[in-house]
Amino acid sequence: MLLKKPVVWGLVGQVNLSSIYKPVQEDLEKVERSLEEIADSEFPLLAQLLAYTLKNGGKRIRPALTLLSGKFYAYDVALIVLMATAIELLHTATLVHDDIVDNSPVRRGKPTVSRAWGENRALLLGDYLFAKAGSLAASTGNLRVVKLFSQTLMTISGGELKQTGVSFGLASAREYYFDWIGAKTACLFSAATESGAILSQSPEDAIEAMRDYGHNLGMAFQIVDDVLDFVGEEDELGKPVGSDLREGTMTLPSILFVESYPEDNLIKSVVEKKDAENVALAVEKIRNSSIIDECLALASEFCSRASRAVEKLPENSARQSLLGLAAYIVERRK
Amino acid sequence: MLLKKPVVWGLVGQVNLSSIYKPVQEDLEKVERSLEEIADSEFPLLAQLLAYTLKNGGKRIRPALTLLSGKFYAYDVALIVLMATAIELLHTATLVHDDIVDNSPVRRGKPTVSRAWGENRALLLGDYLFAKAGSLAASTGNLRVVKLFSQTLMTISGGELKQTGVSFGLASAREYYFDWIGAKTACLFSAATESGAILSQSPEDAIEAMRDYGHNLGMAFQIVDDVLDFVGEEDELGKPVGSDLREGTMTLPSILFVESYPEDNLIKSVVEKKDAENVALAVEKIRNSSIIDECLALASEFCSRASRAVEKLPENSARQSLLGLAAYIVERRK
Repeated sequence: MLLKKPVVWGLVGQVNLSSIYKPVQEDLEKVERSLEEIADSEFPLLAQLLAYTLKNGGKRIRPALTLLSGKFYAYDVALIVLMATAIELLHTATLVHDDIVDNSPVRRGKPTVSRAWGENRALLLGDYLFAKAGSLAASTGNLRVVKLFSQTLMTISGGELKQTGVSFGLASAREYYFDWIGAKTACLFSAATESGAILSQSPEDAIEAMRDYGHNLGMAFQIVDDVLDFVGEEDELGKPVGSDLREGTMTLPSILFVESYPEDNLIKSVVEKKDAENVALAVEKIRNSSIIDECLALASEFCSRASRAVEKLPENSARQSLLGLAAYIVERRK
Repeated sequence: MLLKKPVVWGLVGQVNLSSIYKPVQEDLEKVERSLEEIADSEFPLLAQLLAYTLKNGGKRIRPALTLLSGKFYAYDVALIVLMATAIELLHTATLVHDDIVDNSPVRRGKPTVSRAWGENRALLLGDYLFAKAGSLAASTGNLRVVKLFSQTLMTISGGELKQTGVSFGLASAREYYFDWIGAKTACLFSAATESGAILSQSPEDAIEAMRDYGHNLGMAFQIVDDVLDFVGEEDELGKPVGSDLREGTMTLPSILFVESYPEDNLIKSVVEKKDAENVALAVEKIRNSSIIDECLALASEFCSRASRAVEKLPENSARQSLLGLAAYIVERRK
């Protein structure tokens, strides 16, 4: 199957995460050690589940965002590391619960917790992680970030709940999609950046700029994630290509395809009937259309908005990194 | 089937909740209105789910405990009502998730959320309720209660997770049981009383006394709950008698029975093989033994400890109510 390579991917390889993370590399290692300590401190089953979910080789984009966003004014390393750890735990908790809801077999190339230990344990592990995350957020001593934290979890779970009521074929599918990814992904990205700004005593307009940056970056991130589910490599994704379609979930590529080719019933049939046999065919159709380019163009737009927001902040190496991340997000392959 | 009436139940009817709640009746109504507002404020599916779980005719013991515990020093009604509402939401969230884990069909005479709307929606509703509860706790502006709140959810979910690894027949079944109900029930009771004390600027020894009271009251409450699952009336329980055994869960009555009659294999077989046919027989055996009296004697011991703790506090109508609750807990029929 030939993949028509989108133009915006021309820069792949020129940006990499380790150079982006450089201004906060040391503190990101502190976050990593905090996560290890959290995994070590409990009774055997919990320790095993925590180690499995927290030492996962993830990209740690969200904690890096908190650390970078805290670099513009009064950077208090202890507070920012606490919050960055809380953000990663909250993220992990939502993944563990999402994998139950979506009945996902695999994440990052390994069986999901719900598949390996059962849904009940996954549910309770997620609850534990939410609580531990909340406890760390509270340890910052800053009530504003605690409220932001709770609000974020309300938005994420409320948004997912809304999504359970959405049926395919709505005229407003694209609008629903943007609402949905705003709640499930962008909301946590903006909590990551906003909390970093709050904890470093940034002025209100800088806090707003960081929130704006995080939101737009998160929107782009999720669009690219959904594109990668069509054009990525199974090895790099850690899950089979076409997973969303196979689970009956419409994401931006399917939505744009149905908008562009309303007479083509393949996607509709795959999604509505969970017609697994035709998933590969549907994926190929979308890969060979202009839809992927259109999706990536939309992602690039969000990234541009993110960059414009961050340009309001003082110039320093963290700002360079945040701009670099906005470029990386669209170029990434996994 | 004749129920041998335990001696300690002689007082039934002499204590009732509405007279116990009198010192905080007005504020308990504020909690009720807060819960209604929370249920009203969201999109249709969420509003429906919130109304279903929050307007449930529950006894509201936990919020009442927070309100009563705040009555000894500087009672700030707005703060205490916020926290009491948060405690009830946290309680509701854990029930919604528990009903998924236990696969329970019925709660308070109605289908559980997971049975009526499916497990995914129940899971997300629980997450939403946790978050909303955390947000209200944060609104008190008191970081100590926010930390207590997170710690409570960690204890509850960690305890339930532990419980998923417990197998029947352990020599230490009784010890496990007390650990388990400490985490699943007493912990939230003590968070309810401790937070009330904290928010009313109680001195440290009074906070400790209230925590102690809540813990012991919670232990007694759960033991009686587990006894009622054997001796209660289906109409009053809102679920079939013998539910725990039917789900393969050993609670204090079964544990004491197996300790007392190790040669009798009925309970073991019902629990291990989820042998539903023999549940009624096992229930009858336990009802007709001295086990129920023994359980209630243990519950009474916890209530006595609770009463001793609360006697350290200044004498007022709230103290009378807390003592009354300790009596009510053992006498209640539902």
